[in-house]
Amino acid sequence: MKTISRLQPILVAWIAVTLSQAASADEGMWLFNDLPKEHLKTKYGFEPSDEWAQHVMLSSVRFNSGGSASFVSSTGLVLTNHHVGADTLHKVSTPEHNYYRDGFLAKTTADEIEAPDLELNQLVSVDDVTERVNGAVKSEMSTEEAFAARRAVMSEIEKESLDKTGLRSDVVTLYGGARYHLYRYKKYTDVRLVWAPESGIAFFGGDADNFEYPRYCLDVCLFRVYEDDKPAKIEHFLKVSEKGAADGEVVFVPGNPGRTQRIFTSAALKYQRDRYVPYVLDFLRRREILYQQFGLEGEEQERQARDDLFGTQNARKAYTGMIQGLQNPVFLARKQEEEAAIRAKVENDPDLKKYADAWKTIEGTQARRADALGQTAGFAGRHYSIAETLVFMAAEDQKPNAKRLRQYRESARASLEQQLFSPAPIHADLERLKFADSLALLVERRGGDHPLVQKVLDGNSPQARAAELVGGTGVTDVEFRRKLAKGGQAAIDASTDPMIRLAKLMEPEARRARKINDELDELERQAYSQITTAVYAVKGTETYPDATFTLRLAFGPVRGYVEGGQAIPPWTTIAGAFEHEKNHGAKEPWELPAKWHARKDQLDSGTPFNFVCTADIIGGNSGSPVINRKAELVGVIFDGNIQSLTSRYFYSDKVARAVSVHSSVVLESLRKIYDAGGLADELGK
Amino acid sequence: MKTISRLQPILVAWIAVTLSQAASADEGMWLFNDLPKEHLKTKYGFEPSDEWAQHVMLSSVRFNSGGSASFVSSTGLVLTNHHVGADTLHKVSTPEHNYYRDGFLAKTTADEIEAPDLELNQLVSVDDVTERVNGAVKSEMSTEEAFAARRAVMSEIEKESLDKTGLRSDVVTLYGGARYHLYRYKKYTDVRLVWAPESGIAFFGGDADNFEYPRYCLDVCLFRVYEDDKPAKIEHFLKVSEKGAADGEVVFVPGNPGRTQRIFTSAALKYQRDRYVPYVLDFLRRREILYQQFGLEGEEQERQARDDLFGTQNARKAYTGMIQGLQNPVFLARKQEEEAAIRAKVENDPDLKKYADAWKTIEGTQARRADALGQTAGFAGRHYSIAETLVFMAAEDQKPNAKRLRQYRESARASLEQQLFSPAPIHADLERLKFADSLALLVERRGGDHPLVQKVLDGNSPQARAAELVGGTGVTDVEFRRKLAKGGQAAIDASTDPMIRLAKLMEPEARRARKINDELDELERQAYSQITTAVYAVKGTETYPDATFTLRLAFGPVRGYVEGGQAIPPWTTIAGAFEHEKNHGAKEPWELPAKWHARKDQLDSGTPFNFVCTADIIGGNSGSPVINRKAELVGVIFDGNIQSLTSRYFYSDKVARAVSVHSSVVLESLRKIYDAGGLADELGK
Repeated sequence: MKTISRLQPILVAWIAVTLSQAASADEGMWLFNDLPKEHLKTKYGFEPSDEWAQHVMLSSVRFNSGGSASFVSSTGLVLTNHHVGADTLHKVSTPEHNYYRDGFLAKTTADEIEAPDLELNQLVSVDDVTERVNGAVKSEMSTEEAFAARRAVMSEIEKESLDKTGLRSDVVTLYGGARYHLYRYKKYTDVRLVWAPESGIAFFGGDADNFEYPRYCLDVCLFRVYEDDKPAKIEHFLKVSEKGAADGEVVFVPGNPGRTQRIFTSAALKYQRDRYVPYVLDFLRRREILYQQFGLEGEEQERQARDDLFGTQNARKAYTGMIQGLQNPVFLARKQEEEAAIRAKVENDPDLKKYADAWKTIEGTQARRADALGQTAGFAGRHYSIAETLVFMAAEDQKPNAKRLRQYRESARASLEQQLFSPAPIHADLERLKFADSLALLVERRGGDHPLVQKVLDGNSPQARAAELVGGTGVTDVEFRRKLAKGGQAAIDASTDPMIRLAKLMEPEARRARKINDELDELERQAYSQITTAVYAVKGTETYPDATFTLRLAFGPVRGYVEGGQAIPPWTTIAGAFEHEKNHGAKEPWELPAKWHARKDQLDSGTPFNFVCTADIIGGNSGSPVINRKAELVGVIFDGNIQSLTSRYFYSDKVARAVSVHSSVVLESLRKIYDAGGLADELGK
Repeated sequence: MKTISRLQPILVAWIAVTLSQAASADEGMWLFNDLPKEHLKTKYGFEPSDEWAQHVMLSSVRFNSGGSASFVSSTGLVLTNHHVGADTLHKVSTPEHNYYRDGFLAKTTADEIEAPDLELNQLVSVDDVTERVNGAVKSEMSTEEAFAARRAVMSEIEKESLDKTGLRSDVVTLYGGARYHLYRYKKYTDVRLVWAPESGIAFFGGDADNFEYPRYCLDVCLFRVYEDDKPAKIEHFLKVSEKGAADGEVVFVPGNPGRTQRIFTSAALKYQRDRYVPYVLDFLRRREILYQQFGLEGEEQERQARDDLFGTQNARKAYTGMIQGLQNPVFLARKQEEEAAIRAKVENDPDLKKYADAWKTIEGTQARRADALGQTAGFAGRHYSIAETLVFMAAEDQKPNAKRLRQYRESARASLEQQLFSPAPIHADLERLKFADSLALLVERRGGDHPLVQKVLDGNSPQARAAELVGGTGVTDVEFRRKLAKGGQAAIDASTDPMIRLAKLMEPEARRARKINDELDELERQAYSQITTAVYAVKGTETYPDATFTLRLAFGPVRGYVEGGQAIPPWTTIAGAFEHEKNHGAKEPWELPAKWHARKDQLDSGTPFNFVCTADIIGGNSGSPVINRKAELVGVIFDGNIQSLTSRYFYSDKVARAVSVHSSVVLESLRKIYDAGGLADELGK
């Protein structure tokens, strides 16, 4: 942590402060280099040492595919959620071996299954590079120039860092653009599956119980990182607590929350409420039905569509919770009052008056975002995304690094190629269906008479055109991809592959759409940077930036809550899981796996199963370890309750809770159900 | 049929004629007073006598709730689809007796269960009233005046007819406005449930198999109409054929197709393609997920939501098929070519030139329809719809009959009151969910800052407001409704019932929305009337009007088809049903009811189950009898295959098929599975 420069605390989380919060609520997704030491000391008498923070940071793992995890042994074991590992579980499954559904255990390291395209990141250092990034943007620049200059200097910094350290280097935009930090990660790309339980217990209760509590999910699995074909030696890892945390005990959650929008102005929230979230929900419901329909065709189809269906249902339920919060007039009224008070102070303060227009800027970009909604220029499905990446890569590679689109910058090339050349299976029928549906969506959004639509369909129906393109393309072959990537622009131009031709046809439109978006992003970055500064000047207190899928620390006590007059206890037990099954007639998705019934009598039925705490988490935190003051793992985050779904915009600890798998049930089930006592003993060693 | 005046044949079905049809294809939903005698004689050597037509017409039954049926005994038995009867099956079920799922058999007439709000219609006469309707509309009238004048004269005609005959009297708009016919119906409102099979066999294969073929669904049930508390004596009814129809044999389908839009111009079809159908689909998917989520809460919730879920899924699948047809550029290109040719002829013909602007009128109304999309002013849920009806009824009743909204005209009052005062159970939780969702939809469509939205929500979230209103209203009580209805405007104005207050608040907006719609309808009625006349003048041949949920006759041979190179035979068998179950692992929804397994050995496994024919049908035809030349019932329509879903816009007999339950499986299962041999013997007697 020694390279970390201290960041001035800035208040952005003022929404929550005003929203019926006790002043001492444990809000916050804190930067490791800017922990709320004052609050922790005052409220919990806990003073995390630099060594504690360093140890926890280095024990934390990010799944680049979208999730969090932790090292739990010196021998490279990584503990995460079953639903974070699910992407890999599906990719290594076949019609004959459904590891997602049936679970998996490697008896020896030789049996561990290599994940086709996982990249795990361990954060090793953070540097503040705000001055250098902002220094590159001159006040006389147009928005477009400012965006290009910022992008250029960020790519430069990353490239330098990569060349110097060999570490994955990402410049992260914090506080909506007020701060820029350089994050360096050690990468692990040889990752192998060690153990996963059955989906029936990992996701017990299915979509019905998702985001609900009380819960009974063994939503965990184990991977192992390798280096030089041997289990990696890990210095910093977490011990696993046999007993877990006590009721009321404060716990800590290091992890990578994906996205919050607590900085948003009321104008931005109204756009979310009236346009963006409804738009996303329409899309998600469309996809959900599509995957359901595909799954109805048979067991193998159900297997292929499962991961997509879960992701879609999960998002649909999350966005439904979000819009319910946004549509509550109380929420926005308070936000507006607060905002009006701050804007009045800014207007009347000679030092701050220069920031007064920032709120208007945000209001202006919302209208433009609404206009651009649905004007995307890409298609769903792996076939198209491969073709699009190849087409863009060829064009971008001809530019100097600093001028490339972020995705194609040199420092990110290795990660990009790992995805692009992934040998993961592509399910042609499902992908064709997704692709056809997104062709149909293009017709809906632009209108069937649009010249671009007519060129894309080439006289066919979306379904027929999708069949033609998916049937005719060679992109399913990894060697074909490698050859095209190597051949650069000349190879792309010469290619007669129909999917490549389509991506080429779409390229100008995709660039146009991206440019509009980049400009809006830049405008908002500048405005939010000003708003952040102004708000801090008006209020001033310890604070944290909105989530950015980078490492943060959240915390709060293990604590039940009251719902509809009923006290919900802080944790559930194994006995409760069997009871829950019975209450639902033991019908799918409330059917415990056969092994659980077979071994029922051997289990300690009082073993805690899931528990809740008030830590401030959000999607991306899935798989985060939950630790105590001694940095022992007492649980694994896997969900938030339904009341927590508005935390994208504001935090509350009244009834919103983070839901975790208890460490005890992990150990108990490894030992008594999965015949993996050796693995349980390896944990923490 | 003697009151029927002959209608000049007019061609409107020119779309289909040009779309890869054999000239002799059996397209058409023909008026009983204008059957295609020439075609039938030429192609099938069949000349339906007036007596034949009269007998078939009088044997046909319309379910006013949306479906078709037929009289099948002199003792009042009515045969329709299980899914047409489902509305009633759900309404007479309770948490203890789920007749929808488990089936029902009345051992004696005393055991027959009264439907709470069914109205069955038997068409008894048709009169052409075009001259009188058009005579009321003067050329100097504004669109608004024209609409009012037309509405007034229609209500007048209906009132006169009702007073004179005592029969339900509806003026029906045909050929998009070129013709008006007065339909008189004998009404049956004492309708009782006699027999229904289990939903597991009625809807075998569920949503997955819906609109698919081959199929194995016993999608039938029996009701009985009563008069003076005794089984009604029915003069005209169909005999039920033991053997059914032969492969290739022409069959006839009298029934009430709900809606086709074959008259639509290309501009209207583009609006359907790009705006309307996507809009409807977004809404349907939204509802489908809502009902699914509710059903996940438990078995009783699943039972309550089943009928809504089925209806929504059925519509979603139908609209998906429709948009796939519309998005096929070939379809619209042909339509445009054809239209251009006709318009050129009209422009250059001095007699027809006066109709040339009609196409432009339609183009203009499409843009206005797009603007009005989503500006509806009602809410879902039975609570609100009762309140809205009461509020409107009070206001409309103060106007003379001729000036009322159609729904509130005197001649329709009895039917309206039957619905309004229905004692059918209202499931509070489900209705609250629907209502809350439509409050949320209002926020999405108008924006949370809209003054109307703010008034409606009254400072609450949609969910909280829905709970408040549904919890606080008295409209669930039929007596409360009767009292308010009797009290008229004064009672409405004095009512403090929160749902009545909301309906009152929404009234002006609902009237505004309706007015816009009425004006667009009138403009289009005038334009389509001109287009119809012009097209007929250009082409001229036997034809039929678009479907209007009134009695029509369709026909065509029993015939298999080829799909993906595979010959699909014209019918399936009982043996095939067991095979189909096995192929799907006998898992829900492919699980045959226990009775079928118990009696399997007694069944004649070769009995035909479902069969296909080329008759031109659409939603509303569900439950239609399929009859042979001797007017014997050989089947009951219950579905179309997936290829038939574009028939809203155009007919094809290449692979599109109507799907029916075979008469043999009805008799076989009544006798050997349902211990209802007596009922089987009663059929046709």
